[in-house]
Amino acid sequence: MKKYYLLAPGPTPMPPRVLQAMTRPILHHRTKEFVALMKSVSTDLRWLFETTSDVLVLNSTGTGGMEAAVTNFLSRGDKAIAVCGGKFGKRWAQIGKAYGVEMIEIEVPYGSAVDPATVARLLDEHKDVRAVFTQGSETSTGVAHPIREIAALVRHRPDTLMVVDGVTSVGVMPQPMDEWGIDVLVSGSQKAFMLPPGLAFIGVSAKAWSFAERSTLPKYYFNLTKERKTQGNGESAYTSAVSLVMGLRESLNMMKEEGLPAIFRRHALLAQATREGLVALGCELLAKTHPSAAVTAVYPPSGVAAGDVTSTLNKTYNITAAGGQDELKGKIFRIAHLGYAGRFDVVTAISALEMVFKELGHQFDSGIGVATAHRVLEAGGDL
Amino acid sequence: MKKYYLLAPGPTPMPPRVLQAMTRPILHHRTKEFVALMKSVSTDLRWLFETTSDVLVLNSTGTGGMEAAVTNFLSRGDKAIAVCGGKFGKRWAQIGKAYGVEMIEIEVPYGSAVDPATVARLLDEHKDVRAVFTQGSETSTGVAHPIREIAALVRHRPDTLMVVDGVTSVGVMPQPMDEWGIDVLVSGSQKAFMLPPGLAFIGVSAKAWSFAERSTLPKYYFNLTKERKTQGNGESAYTSAVSLVMGLRESLNMMKEEGLPAIFRRHALLAQATREGLVALGCELLAKTHPSAAVTAVYPPSGVAAGDVTSTLNKTYNITAAGGQDELKGKIFRIAHLGYAGRFDVVTAISALEMVFKELGHQFDSGIGVATAHRVLEAGGDL
Repeated sequence: MKKYYLLAPGPTPMPPRVLQAMTRPILHHRTKEFVALMKSVSTDLRWLFETTSDVLVLNSTGTGGMEAAVTNFLSRGDKAIAVCGGKFGKRWAQIGKAYGVEMIEIEVPYGSAVDPATVARLLDEHKDVRAVFTQGSETSTGVAHPIREIAALVRHRPDTLMVVDGVTSVGVMPQPMDEWGIDVLVSGSQKAFMLPPGLAFIGVSAKAWSFAERSTLPKYYFNLTKERKTQGNGESAYTSAVSLVMGLRESLNMMKEEGLPAIFRRHALLAQATREGLVALGCELLAKTHPSAAVTAVYPPSGVAAGDVTSTLNKTYNITAAGGQDELKGKIFRIAHLGYAGRFDVVTAISALEMVFKELGHQFDSGIGVATAHRVLEAGGDL
Repeated sequence: MKKYYLLAPGPTPMPPRVLQAMTRPILHHRTKEFVALMKSVSTDLRWLFETTSDVLVLNSTGTGGMEAAVTNFLSRGDKAIAVCGGKFGKRWAQIGKAYGVEMIEIEVPYGSAVDPATVARLLDEHKDVRAVFTQGSETSTGVAHPIREIAALVRHRPDTLMVVDGVTSVGVMPQPMDEWGIDVLVSGSQKAFMLPPGLAFIGVSAKAWSFAERSTLPKYYFNLTKERKTQGNGESAYTSAVSLVMGLRESLNMMKEEGLPAIFRRHALLAQATREGLVALGCELLAKTHPSAAVTAVYPPSGVAAGDVTSTLNKTYNITAAGGQDELKGKIFRIAHLGYAGRFDVVTAISALEMVFKELGHQFDSGIGVATAHRVLEAGGDL
């Protein structure tokens, strides 16, 4: 009997009460009950995104939300900056190029955060940049980009939007849309929302809506203007993924009960304990200066192959963690601590990794990783 | 205590075993377990679509599948025919136009099926038509278009594709892709698949893949060529809606146990019993000659308002049926009999409608609708 643990950065485990909510009989999406559900969900998404503007629900995974963030605000031939510091930063560039947007790519070394000065310089050089695309948390590297600083550069440019992929930063790290001046903020259901994959969320500022009026890129399924009109009435342009929305109602309830400051503090503490525990075991952090609170990416101790770490976790301990992606494939592994994650998930992860490292022949003081993580968690106080 | 009944044409009710499959712990989408799941699902989708070519799973509702059917095979300025005999036929035209395709719209009176001769004439007039778009079952009117006849017209034209929205016809009525020469066949999870909304399916013929190579319309999230490459290996281009795919595995099991001939016979019988029961109560069928086996649309008996029928079903009996859409709004109501639907769902529907009609002042022999439906069902023999 080996219990199954899911420690990858999405999909993340689901709380029983969210699962229960999703098993209620299917609601039809054109009923008073569903209208009430959508309206209450919209209200609480605005709370979560910290905006008085709109947050729309899309029936797709996060990449669909990213596509919507390009096609609804830009036109063919527009110029935009993409921060490419990992697989998902590159995705911004790929989507833009697929739709004929001229993408200025900032190549950021994997593991580093973008320097806001680089963004400032490019914005100076290219007065006609219509949008800056970046990640709040680059899931492939575990880096948190300095969103606040970049948003401050964009804020006072009436012709430029600040667009953030918050797939693993919304509900994980502070990122108040209105206060910081984020114009478009995308997230997905299988991360901090503690739901299965299948919903994307997109916050849209008033400034972004004015861009939408002039956007000529083609779109139909991801037409945010149409969604805004229907979701404002508690409906949706097309069929809603009703079971996921029923689960979303419950996961938002849980988030509201915990409160944003506590959510952010919890994620920060779990991330710190994970980092310190892994370093104590001889791992090297990929993100040395700007770590994400959602996921920690590390190089394994010398002599240990990253691929062996994830496969042994899986085979011997029935634990799913994540390896590296694209150019980091086979070089790193990643441990997530977001969503329905608590102190003892970190203890479990570090304990399992100690066992795996031992099995793979790495020498270290047995228990040092667990003890280190434990001390951080204990010092963190109540969660 | 009023039991809840869902008699709308999607979402439809879920079988308990499908629900149970969806409540298993979330699988990560980059694991051997998920690869095995996707591969087996792909195999059985080909069985269901009756094709040896590909059937891909998309993480969206049906409209996303329709968009993919346009953007992956056509280019800007291409000419295409759309059969517009209801809300969903019009959707083909809208999607095409949103992407710069020149759509030749065949306006079919709501309730009628398109005449294949009209399609033949237009194909003759416009030698450069690249695709014919139609519905297998037009959900808004309850009409089944003559797919086989239209496909026969398109089949021998190397430069024209036959594209069918099978959202409420796949798994309901015979529509063998390969035998009839359907090139692109779209469906959605919340219909005959007995799942919540959130997945679309798209069958793609070899001929359609050759169109995909030349298509220049922009796409990213719905890139079928990329999905074909990844899903062929049991993966997916982006995150999969894993819980829905786990449910899909189980609903395909159920469909295979029943078998296609029995599935088609069951839907045909339920549809016939519904039609005869409703006519016996004084309703007028909207689709007099080519009724769909998925949903029956009727005008209420004279003196009864369609809106009152659906609202009384809901308020007094806790039953969700569907009204009319677009220009049929307030004129008709629709009773579905697809997916997880059996004989006694029809009996329930007709019995409830008798009670509603009585409450709304319509005069008829009490029990005549139920008895009529019952006789049809009994004569239909074993299901």
